[in-house]
Amino acid sequence: MNMIKILLLSVSLLVSSAFAETMLVNKQQFTVNNFKTFNGSTIDTVNIGWEAYGQLNDDKSNVILITHYFTGNSHAAGKYAETDPLPGYWDAIIGPGKAIDTDKYYVISSDTLVNASAYDPNVITTGPATINPRTQKPFGLTFPVVTIRDFVNVQKALLDSLGIKKLHAVVGPSMGSMQAIDWAVAYPDMVERMVSVIGTAQADAWLVAALEKWAYPIKQDPNWQQGNYYDGDKPITGLTQSLALITQEAMHPAIFNASNPNHNPLEKAPLMDINANYPVVDWLYGAAEKRTKLIDANHILYLVRANQTFIAGYGNDLASALQNVKAKTLFLPASNDLLLYPAMAQKAHELIGEGSQYDEIEGKWGHLDGIFSIQSKANELSAFLEQ
Amino acid sequence: MNMIKILLLSVSLLVSSAFAETMLVNKQQFTVNNFKTFNGSTIDTVNIGWEAYGQLNDDKSNVILITHYFTGNSHAAGKYAETDPLPGYWDAIIGPGKAIDTDKYYVISSDTLVNASAYDPNVITTGPATINPRTQKPFGLTFPVVTIRDFVNVQKALLDSLGIKKLHAVVGPSMGSMQAIDWAVAYPDMVERMVSVIGTAQADAWLVAALEKWAYPIKQDPNWQQGNYYDGDKPITGLTQSLALITQEAMHPAIFNASNPNHNPLEKAPLMDINANYPVVDWLYGAAEKRTKLIDANHILYLVRANQTFIAGYGNDLASALQNVKAKTLFLPASNDLLLYPAMAQKAHELIGEGSQYDEIEGKWGHLDGIFSIQSKANELSAFLEQ
Repeated sequence: MNMIKILLLSVSLLVSSAFAETMLVNKQQFTVNNFKTFNGSTIDTVNIGWEAYGQLNDDKSNVILITHYFTGNSHAAGKYAETDPLPGYWDAIIGPGKAIDTDKYYVISSDTLVNASAYDPNVITTGPATINPRTQKPFGLTFPVVTIRDFVNVQKALLDSLGIKKLHAVVGPSMGSMQAIDWAVAYPDMVERMVSVIGTAQADAWLVAALEKWAYPIKQDPNWQQGNYYDGDKPITGLTQSLALITQEAMHPAIFNASNPNHNPLEKAPLMDINANYPVVDWLYGAAEKRTKLIDANHILYLVRANQTFIAGYGNDLASALQNVKAKTLFLPASNDLLLYPAMAQKAHELIGEGSQYDEIEGKWGHLDGIFSIQSKANELSAFLEQ
Repeated sequence: MNMIKILLLSVSLLVSSAFAETMLVNKQQFTVNNFKTFNGSTIDTVNIGWEAYGQLNDDKSNVILITHYFTGNSHAAGKYAETDPLPGYWDAIIGPGKAIDTDKYYVISSDTLVNASAYDPNVITTGPATINPRTQKPFGLTFPVVTIRDFVNVQKALLDSLGIKKLHAVVGPSMGSMQAIDWAVAYPDMVERMVSVIGTAQADAWLVAALEKWAYPIKQDPNWQQGNYYDGDKPITGLTQSLALITQEAMHPAIFNASNPNHNPLEKAPLMDINANYPVVDWLYGAAEKRTKLIDANHILYLVRANQTFIAGYGNDLASALQNVKAKTLFLPASNDLLLYPAMAQKAHELIGEGSQYDEIEGKWGHLDGIFSIQSKANELSAFLEQ
């Protein structure tokens, strides 16, 4: 089990004691053919996975869409089996009687295109690791660059297929927040409420460069082979560095240090040997390496690019785009976030202007407070959804 | 010219208009034989470069030692020639009539062991890139792991050779602050004043992992060859990534974005081609690649380790170590620093306790405010040195 999962498990155990019932969920598959991407390409067949919690009401007016984060997937709540060690990542706020109350709402969550966890049996996605039916080989870099808007449009196609014409709300953390904001801009008449958790309305120059750090080690790996590694050794070394960077940057130093209470700067091995590592480094990189089993390196590159190309509304003028939003909006950045820092959400909130709500999640996790401390905003979230 | 130098030049031009006179300086070499390192090794011959500004008084009581930052060197102030585009990095505060007034003080600045810029003709250092006289080949990884304490002890030997028994002050930014703090702990009777700028008294677990990010890409580069690359291709790809990370992490997003005002997330090339880069990425990595001409990859690995092993006093108990400090102390972290964030300096300040002074440098640069915004604390620094 990787580090994040262990941490999530600890949090989950604390939270779950308050909720006796396990919500059992299952994965479904959605297919859309001849999908047109924002950059003008066509993907013959897109398959994605999705889950739903609660019951769709008769006039299909009780739908809440959950959009997932960078390394996340559609498993936002519940368990596939009672014996699962962990529920979905936002189980603290999604379920019967919870902030996003599945006794009232029909909650839908889907896997994005180019989902990181291409080899997770519970994820269904389409991306560079997918077999191209025309060649019977993985797409690799022949897969088109896709954007957050494309993620939104696949979700739109899924909702269309279900006859859903209104979203009571769209709610997502981090990259999920990008999708949520873009939903409110792209389909203003369809989105009644939008909640951005630890999010931003635009990838600025700094974020583009910060994200490039996650791509570079993969491209630097000799096994990467311009993305054609599917028949040989995978670029595990590069992917490990990438995942270690992602993990550390999502954590505030306070929680990182608290997770390594026995760290000793004068540890003998690294003091004597330049090749020896500190236990904290083995901890971070060891967890990252374990995660490479389920994650595809090319998918990380495509996710990086989807985030780099993000600007809500996909035009030249973010301010005008956000003025088109008709949804009630709530921004919930995390005070200690060092990745998508609160000023980013603050800016989007201010550009929307009158009526937009803003509050900061307090916590010691940093960016991950959007997952692990979301429970602290349960009442506010619940009230917002009733407005 | 690399990006940092361009930025420094801009700042320097603004500042220098207030000072008509150019202080001309020259580099000297200091040699110490049979140098014993903290980890118990011996280096037969250590050569380092040093500069001095001002005049040593008769009783040698007016010495201020300046200790440099990670990618810095002994060129803290002045110019080698009138035609140099840039003066030393702290020229804004070191010189005649400036905060560290060379009309009063004799200011010494030396290159560290394993200095990053092994190929800079103005740097003299000893490290893995140095020819081992016993083998007539570069030391490579046979060079012992060295620590901040070793940097301090080379400086101590230099001062001993000059007959200097007291330091009016030791002042340094970032890694230079580590040296300054350790000076005050290691030689409490010798150090009268200590100024830590953007510093910390200990590498915590988070910092150790953050620093590892700078080492990993070098080790990942196939040209690295366990440090034996001196006869072949150098690990430029890995070193480039390392220097790009260092540059970005030293800059706050605000200044990073201000430096790239024309960034467009919908730039055509990266939207169409996963291999195409944004101009901001070319800017960051292009500048990093240019810097690889002067910088040795193994030296970066050794600097990373010197920082990772740092705990002032080099014992198990930082609190006790800092209680031994007799110097007057002043801590000047930068409010927006995301690398050695203010809480680190705050902790050291509090552990020293009564009499220690603390103030934050305000600025938009982040960590680099310790260099580029130091002028804003000139009066405070000057007053502290007179106390």
